[in-house]
Amino acid sequence: MSKRIAGPEIERLIQLLAKVPGLGPRSARRAALHLIKKKEQLLAPLAAAMGEAVDKVRVCSTCGNVDTSDPCMICTDPLRDPTTIIVVEDVSDLWALERAGAMNARFHVLGGTLSPLDGVGPDQLTIRQLVTRIAEGGVSEVILAVNATVEGQTTAHYLTDQLSGFDVKITRLAHGVPVGGELDYLDEGTLSAALKSRTVF
Amino acid sequence: MSKRIAGPEIERLIQLLAKVPGLGPRSARRAALHLIKKKEQLLAPLAAAMGEAVDKVRVCSTCGNVDTSDPCMICTDPLRDPTTIIVVEDVSDLWALERAGAMNARFHVLGGTLSPLDGVGPDQLTIRQLVTRIAEGGVSEVILAVNATVEGQTTAHYLTDQLSGFDVKITRLAHGVPVGGELDYLDEGTLSAALKSRTVF
Repeated sequence: MSKRIAGPEIERLIQLLAKVPGLGPRSARRAALHLIKKKEQLLAPLAAAMGEAVDKVRVCSTCGNVDTSDPCMICTDPLRDPTTIIVVEDVSDLWALERAGAMNARFHVLGGTLSPLDGVGPDQLTIRQLVTRIAEGGVSEVILAVNATVEGQTTAHYLTDQLSGFDVKITRLAHGVPVGGELDYLDEGTLSAALKSRTVF
Repeated sequence: MSKRIAGPEIERLIQLLAKVPGLGPRSARRAALHLIKKKEQLLAPLAAAMGEAVDKVRVCSTCGNVDTSDPCMICTDPLRDPTTIIVVEDVSDLWALERAGAMNARFHVLGGTLSPLDGVGPDQLTIRQLVTRIAEGGVSEVILAVNATVEGQTTAHYLTDQLSGFDVKITRLAHGVPVGGELDYLDEGTLSAALKSRTVF
């Protein structure tokens, strides 16, 4: 705000809310006002939930996921297939795959992709931990669910190289037409991949 | 999420974030993950700021504004003109007018507009408090800065009626072409009003 029209506590709340992804300076003001108006129903519970998250959230030392327990709920779930590990770049990818609910496997969160120009080498990612998990045995398949970007594919090749000495099957996600997608709007690379990997109807 | 993939604390945080205006279920997940990753830099300060707001925010008993003091900073500001009161529907309107910074006056927040169908009568708004402020004297102008909607204008007429016994000038915001606006995109009502209220160039 150009000049002070409310106590510093409210202005600080607006400033911090503006840093939340999805909110900007304008919507942060609107959000702050809504929260203040719904003080008991929303602001107080949200403050408590955030405080609890600050205290309890930790990174899983096995797979790199974030959870309120270490090892995380996925690593300790006895109903999950421990022979398959899905490797993802980020926790958001893990959440997205879990929402799809297609596989009941374990995960490994790399924490990013190899990017020498940004100073991200193998030691900045959880690659050593992944190799250790595989070396401990019991894993028969590693699914490289990295993004279909140059960095993602570079990281996938590096991982394949690192894991070549172990008796594990290394697979990656299929390329193709998104479900519900229209061919007219798809890029040539995707269309070529979809044609190459065509399946019997 | 379709199935539990993280501790209940994280899922509760996502659920509450989804109720913040500007965030939906999808962006709430993204926001929660960002907050968790920036635990020390963002999540902890935001939790503290919200907790402080819960403790300190109150409604100004004079004007209906929200602030961390009662009377609020605007009502106690000695540099503001106490003879002019700008009447607004909501605190967000007060903030918008303050951002414009066009007038250094006091405010009065109605808390809504008259709407008999929704059960909002004069007693649900701060109309009595406004009449009391005017009756106490020292005010020479009341600017009705209500929205240019049917409800806003109905409320403006009711307020004019209530204040007719006092020696105050009652004014309202000018109608016209928004600054930077293109005539082609404006409605007929605005264009008529702008023509009627034309000024010498």
